[in-house]
Amino acid sequence: MFRPLRVTIWNEYLHELEHDAVRKLYPAGIHAVLDAALSRLLAGAVQTRIATLEQPEHGLTHAALAETDVLTWWGHAAHERVEDEIVERVHNRVLSGMGLVALHSAHASKIFRRLMGTTCMLRWREAAERERVWIVDPSHPITEGIADECFEIEHSEMYGEHFDIPPPDELFAISWFEGGEVFRSGCTWRRGKGKVVYFSPGHETFPIYHDPNVQRIIANAASWAAPAGGLYLGRGRNIQEPLSPIAAKHVVDESLHRPK
Amino acid sequence: MFRPLRVTIWNEYLHELEHDAVRKLYPAGIHAVLDAALSRLLAGAVQTRIATLEQPEHGLTHAALAETDVLTWWGHAAHERVEDEIVERVHNRVLSGMGLVALHSAHASKIFRRLMGTTCMLRWREAAERERVWIVDPSHPITEGIADECFEIEHSEMYGEHFDIPPPDELFAISWFEGGEVFRSGCTWRRGKGKVVYFSPGHETFPIYHDPNVQRIIANAASWAAPAGGLYLGRGRNIQEPLSPIAAKHVVDESLHRPK
Amino acid sequence: MFRPLRVTIWNEYLHELEHDAVRKLYPAGIHAVLDAALSRLLAGAVQTRIATLEQPEHGLTHAALAETDVLTWWGHAAHERVEDEIVERVHNRVLSGMGLVALHSAHASKIFRRLMGTTCMLRWREAAERERVWIVDPSHPITEGIADECFEIEHSEMYGEHFDIPPPDELFAISWFEGGEVFRSGCTWRRGKGKVVYFSPGHETFPIYHDPNVQRIIANAASWAAPAGGLYLGRGRNIQEPLSPIAAKHVVDESLHRPK
Amino acid sequence: MFRPLRVTIWNEYLHELEHDAVRKLYPAGIHAVLDAALSRLLAGAVQTRIATLEQPEHGLTHAALAETDVLTWWGHAAHERVEDEIVERVHNRVLSGMGLVALHSAHASKIFRRLMGTTCMLRWREAAERERVWIVDPSHPITEGIADECFEIEHSEMYGEHFDIPPPDELFAISWFEGGEVFRSGCTWRRGKGKVVYFSPGHETFPIYHDPNVQRIIANAASWAAPAGGLYLGRGRNIQEPLSPIAAKHVVDESLHRPK
Repeated sequence: MFRPLRVTIWNEYLHELEHDAVRKLYPAGIHAVLDAALSRLLAGAVQTRIATLEQPEHGLTHAALAETDVLTWWGHAAHERVEDEIVERVHNRVLSGMGLVALHSAHASKIFRRLMGTTCMLRWREAAERERVWIVDPSHPITEGIADECFEIEHSEMYGEHFDIPPPDELFAISWFEGGEVFRSGCTWRRGKGKVVYFSPGHETFPIYHDPNVQRIIANAASWAAPAGGLYLGRGRNIQEPLSPIAAKHVVDESLHRPK
Repeated sequence: MFRPLRVTIWNEYLHELEHDAVRKLYPAGIHAVLDAALSRLLAGAVQTRIATLEQPEHGLTHAALAETDVLTWWGHAAHERVEDEIVERVHNRVLSGMGLVALHSAHASKIFRRLMGTTCMLRWREAAERERVWIVDPSHPITEGIADECFEIEHSEMYGEHFDIPPPDELFAISWFEGGEVFRSGCTWRRGKGKVVYFSPGHETFPIYHDPNVQRIIANAASWAAPAGGLYLGRGRNIQEPLSPIAAKHVVDESLHRPK
Repeated sequence: MFRPLRVTIWNEYLHELEHDAVRKLYPAGIHAVLDAALSRLLAGAVQTRIATLEQPEHGLTHAALAETDVLTWWGHAAHERVEDEIVERVHNRVLSGMGLVALHSAHASKIFRRLMGTTCMLRWREAAERERVWIVDPSHPITEGIADECFEIEHSEMYGEHFDIPPPDELFAISWFEGGEVFRSGCTWRRGKGKVVYFSPGHETFPIYHDPNVQRIIANAASWAAPAGGLYLGRGRNIQEPLSPIAAKHVVDESLHRPK
Repeated sequence: MFRPLRVTIWNEYLHELEHDAVRKLYPAGIHAVLDAALSRLLAGAVQTRIATLEQPEHGLTHAALAETDVLTWWGHAAHERVEDEIVERVHNRVLSGMGLVALHSAHASKIFRRLMGTTCMLRWREAAERERVWIVDPSHPITEGIADECFEIEHSEMYGEHFDIPPPDELFAISWFEGGEVFRSGCTWRRGKGKVVYFSPGHETFPIYHDPNVQRIIANAASWAAPAGGLYLGRGRNIQEPLSPIAAKHVVDESLHRPK
């Protein structure tokens, strides 16, 4: 039985309401452009939902997350306003299988940093410089449909190394910047049963989310991060009966196992 | 100029004071056995320090951490009593280069879970069963001096899969348990500039920390996790001057970069 | 436009013809059991083809490989009889995107060893012992449908560590053996644009390929290894025109670039 | 007991004899510059030996390899003239623990390709362009002593992605090129008991091997790739006696295990 991929597109959604330059590029919000792109590229196989910072519980209620296979995240200026309780909830949901696609400035979001265990900080410069995104793993499904060895973004914000992340489980893209930096711009990690993708190209004052290659990679990332796999428990299990016989006789002193 | 490796051995140090069975095996504390082993095996090349839960700031003052190259961690029943502020401090120190060797039940410590971003939970059974530790990466310096393909621990506590950790950057040992389980018992990860090792063999009521192979691996792990490498910044750097010329002219709207 | 996954099932196909014990378990060949399993589990989404050692070009003509998305490989006693030219052909096809699923004793096949660059040797014992296959990456699509933390094979051949392979890019299963060994029984690697899976459970005189969990993992592995991704060239490209301007003037001495 | 690191520096040593431009930069051969650098940077802790293509057995006799801890490799125009038998010999020696540091155009050497299992091909351009080598893993010992986030090479040959290598076990450097490409310029892999490093900066007509940062990384790489670790067998072991008791009775049909 076919079931569409249920993607929740989360957007901080402040810049678009407050800055003309951003509104001009993304009049209905960055989320609307991503929504249209996913819906078109994964036609018939995706069902989207929007969630934003200002909604109750940031739009990420227990019910909404329970019905989410993959969550895409865009935030920039208000990471600190995301409630810790919601971060905890999203974190648990990722561990139990929901995919997370962290976009651009989401490198500094609470949820991404929580999953990574590092600062996730980086070099950056907003100078409208040229970025070239090189595909370094042509075997990765996330790179499907990218026709050349690289693609260009005419005006981009530079994000550069050292990017303080754990070594990615998979590295599919490295960006070149006109001003002299490089960046691991396409990365994946596994956490619990969940898959995490980071993809850096994107910005609020450059039209990067309108770029067909960028859209394609984000759609592929959502597909790739869909829940899959075996039984995940994510809790301690005290298994007193062994599966195979044990020769020794042993009496457990339970008092040693009580929290002190 | 030779400088000895400065290792701080952290021990929860509660079981040894409260349980006869533990005291009998580790009369001066698990830390004392580890201290003796490191001092003997890394003779002349190590300088140790002890820190315990009940000391002020858990013995992990700013000064103590500043003088620590590698921290070994043993905790079991009182993970929750480790202050969040100290966890944060240790976390920062790991990111800036200090090695961390997490031992046995430290899989559930706050600091290890914080670095991993997962629950770090597992199957377990205390049944005095046989454990066989198989070396699966004979190229790894941590396995130096292990003479055979595996070594045995006659009576051990079973820790079994699925172990909810991020895929290790390196996996050097897998354990077999008489009762039927397997476990990734020797793992490493990189976080920031710091190296993290997890090694599971060890226990409070089995004399595992007296085992020569176990001691050898812990000593090797401390050596391996010593700080090394290049410049680590671990903070955002806004680099306004490009290293190479940029063709575009661009004026930054600074208001977009202020936290909201 | 939907296109079924084209799987070629390669089988050495000697034991079944020569040994009664094998013929009894696999009367039409191991390939026939795998074929039935794949066809049932990937119903409608797969199109299979059989190839065996004794066929001309081992059944792996240029045409056959060109129409193969994923090749499964079972060989045991006649690895050396596989022609180097065919190995080279399969190798090239893997690099250009074809998936390879190496089964059990295929660890010693020419093609697997060629892709790995190591001996791929291991400990082994045929003693009809119990094997328990533990899933260590529940996020991996290859583990989809495995209902428990592990599954059992009542009578198996032991394959044990150290298994001389490059560290797998992904490790999804570790096996426990009654006689005392462990084994990285489910591994993946990327080579060029191709994905490689190794899955050890299987044998000619034990009915392991009739096991539903084993069949499920092999079917999942075939799906997972399907070609995907971006442009793969796999040859040197001398790019004389830079993408961005270069300040220096330089005249190439072509004589330096001629093979000597 | 201290024992110096025994490094054999292998050089094709043809360009220096045939081309004035090369001889001017490396009058005694590229190997001489590397030798001086290693001897100075690893002062007292290294013992070097030179081997070149034109020597008998390319200078890589059984005796020479037996006394080599780490082999550095520079070749360019005559990869095909390296005898297969010698390649096989070096391959075996790497698997049994010798480190290999492959430099620049050694990406296309027989030994490197044999260890990798891929084509190892790449984009390239000789245009004297600027290269910036960014350190992306400041925790790696190979980056020790690099004072900044990156270092520059004023005139370099471009090597660019997609570089057809297996995903590196560790990635410590990524290069930026003025002409628009990026490259995974510092990588490591494990093969058997041996460690393999690839470091791309270097060239015959640019003075890159005189650069202090380049020299430092090559010296660090040699130190890091030194043999270490546990028992390596690298051959099949039929273990008839189990380590733990097996319930089943089983008679092996030996005829099934004979090569056909």
